[in-house]
Amino acid sequence: MTEANKVTACLIIIGNEILSGRTQDANLAYLAKWLNDQVGIQLTEVRVIPDIEETIVDTVNECRARFDYVFTTGGIGPTHDDITSPSIAKAFGVPWELHPEAHEILKEYYGPEGLTSARARMACGPRGARLIENPISKAPGFQMENVFVLAGIPVIMQAMLESLKHRLTGGLPVRSRAVLLHLPESLVASGLRDLQERHPQADIGSYPFYRQGRGGTSIVIRSTDEELNATLAEEVFRMAFELGGDPQFEESA
Amino acid sequence: MTEANKVTACLIIIGNEILSGRTQDANLAYLAKWLNDQVGIQLTEVRVIPDIEETIVDTVNECRARFDYVFTTGGIGPTHDDITSPSIAKAFGVPWELHPEAHEILKEYYGPEGLTSARARMACGPRGARLIENPISKAPGFQMENVFVLAGIPVIMQAMLESLKHRLTGGLPVRSRAVLLHLPESLVASGLRDLQERHPQADIGSYPFYRQGRGGTSIVIRSTDEELNATLAEEVFRMAFELGGDPQFEESA
Repeated sequence: MTEANKVTACLIIIGNEILSGRTQDANLAYLAKWLNDQVGIQLTEVRVIPDIEETIVDTVNECRARFDYVFTTGGIGPTHDDITSPSIAKAFGVPWELHPEAHEILKEYYGPEGLTSARARMACGPRGARLIENPISKAPGFQMENVFVLAGIPVIMQAMLESLKHRLTGGLPVRSRAVLLHLPESLVASGLRDLQERHPQADIGSYPFYRQGRGGTSIVIRSTDEELNATLAEEVFRMAFELGGDPQFEESA
Repeated sequence: MTEANKVTACLIIIGNEILSGRTQDANLAYLAKWLNDQVGIQLTEVRVIPDIEETIVDTVNECRARFDYVFTTGGIGPTHDDITSPSIAKAFGVPWELHPEAHEILKEYYGPEGLTSARARMACGPRGARLIENPISKAPGFQMENVFVLAGIPVIMQAMLESLKHRLTGGLPVRSRAVLLHLPESLVASGLRDLQERHPQADIGSYPFYRQGRGGTSIVIRSTDEELNATLAEEVFRMAFELGGDPQFEESA
C-alpha cells in the first residue's frame, strides 16, 4: 500500500464515561476492521475527548481537514450531556434546528404524544445534515460533508455503519498474515529489520505477549498484496524455525 | 471540582496494532482509574496514533504543552517498529543515545553476552531522560519533563505506574455514585437537566444500556464531594421511583 492511494479515517470518541474508565470502548476495534474489510479505508488516528463543546468543535474541525473521513461516536441521545449534535453544527457554522425528516421518523416511532421535548432534541441537527438510518432505536445519526455522527452504543453504531456504507469510497483493503514465535522479540529483531527494509510496501509489526507463563512474539505482516504477505510470513517462519522458536502460522491477525 | 484545581493528563497510545483493530487497548481504562484513585489526576484526552515518527513528534509536542501530564504507551521494545524512544528525543530536540544507567540494568539482566544489538536499543534514550523502573522485564521506561514513556504490555505498564507514582502531584480524586433505572433516558431527561443546572459542581452523566433484552439507563454522578454525590443520587432515585422506574443504586460506577 503506498501512501498515495491510502484512504484515511479518524474516529472521535466523545464521552466522559470512556475517559473516566467507567466504560470500556468497544467501537474502535470494530470500526477499524469494518472500514478496512468492507470499504478499504484505514483508521489512521483516534481521539477520545470529553463532553465539552469547545473541545468537540476544535477536534472535529482539525480532523475533518486532515483525514478523508471522520466518524464520531457518542453524545447524540436526549439528555443534557448529549451535546455532540449542536457542537457539530457549531463546527460547521450552521444553525442547529429541527430536522424535518428526523422529526417525521421520531413522530412515527413514538406517536405524537410520545415525542416529548427531550426526544424532540433527537429530531434536531445541523442545517443541511444528511440522516443516517438507525434501524434499532430509530433516532438517526447524520452526515455533514466528510463527518459521520454515530451513536455510542455499539449495536446501534454497527447498524448505522451498514446504513451509510454506500456513501464511503475506499481503496484496496489491507490483508494480514501472522506468525507466532516462542522466542523473545529481541532474537528476531535484526532479521525483521532486514526483512522490513527489503519490503517497504509491507508493514511488519512485532508484538510480544505472555500467555500462561510462556512468553513469545507475534509477527504481523500487513499489506494490500496477499501473495507478498504469504511470502514474508514464510520467511519469518523459516527464520524462527532456524532459531528453534517453534513457529506457528496464526489463524487470525 | 472546579476547573481551576483540576490536574489533567493525556494518554498517547502508540501502535499500528491498536489502529488496525487487531489488539484491543487495555491501558486507557486502567490508567484513567489509577490516575484518579491513586493521585487525583484526571485523564482528559486520549490519542491513538500510528508508528510514524513525525506523528509521534507532533502529537507529543502538542499534548505536553496542553496537559499537566502526558503518558505514552507502546513502541519501546527492541524491534524496528519500536520508534517511540528516538521520536521522543526528537520531540525534545535532544540526542538519542546510550543511557548509562539503562545500559547497566540490561547488562546485569541479560549478561554481557546476552546484550545483543537489538537489546542494546532498549538501553538508549533521549539525553537527560530519567528512568522508570520495570520490575517485570527490566527494560525501563523513562520520563522527560512532564512526559512519561511506558510499555504497551498492560502488566508492565501497570508496574511502571507504581514505580513512578511518587513523581506525580494531583488534586482531590473524583468520586462517583450511580443509579440504575429501568426507564428510557428520555423520560428522566428534563429532571436530570434541572438537577445538573442546580449543581454545576457535579458532572451528571446518563448512559442508556440494553442487557438481556431489557433497556434502561445508568445515571452517574461524579464530583470530588462524596456527600454531594450521595444527595444527588438520592434525588435521582426518588425521581425514577416516582416514574415507576424500579431504580437501584449501583455498586461500582
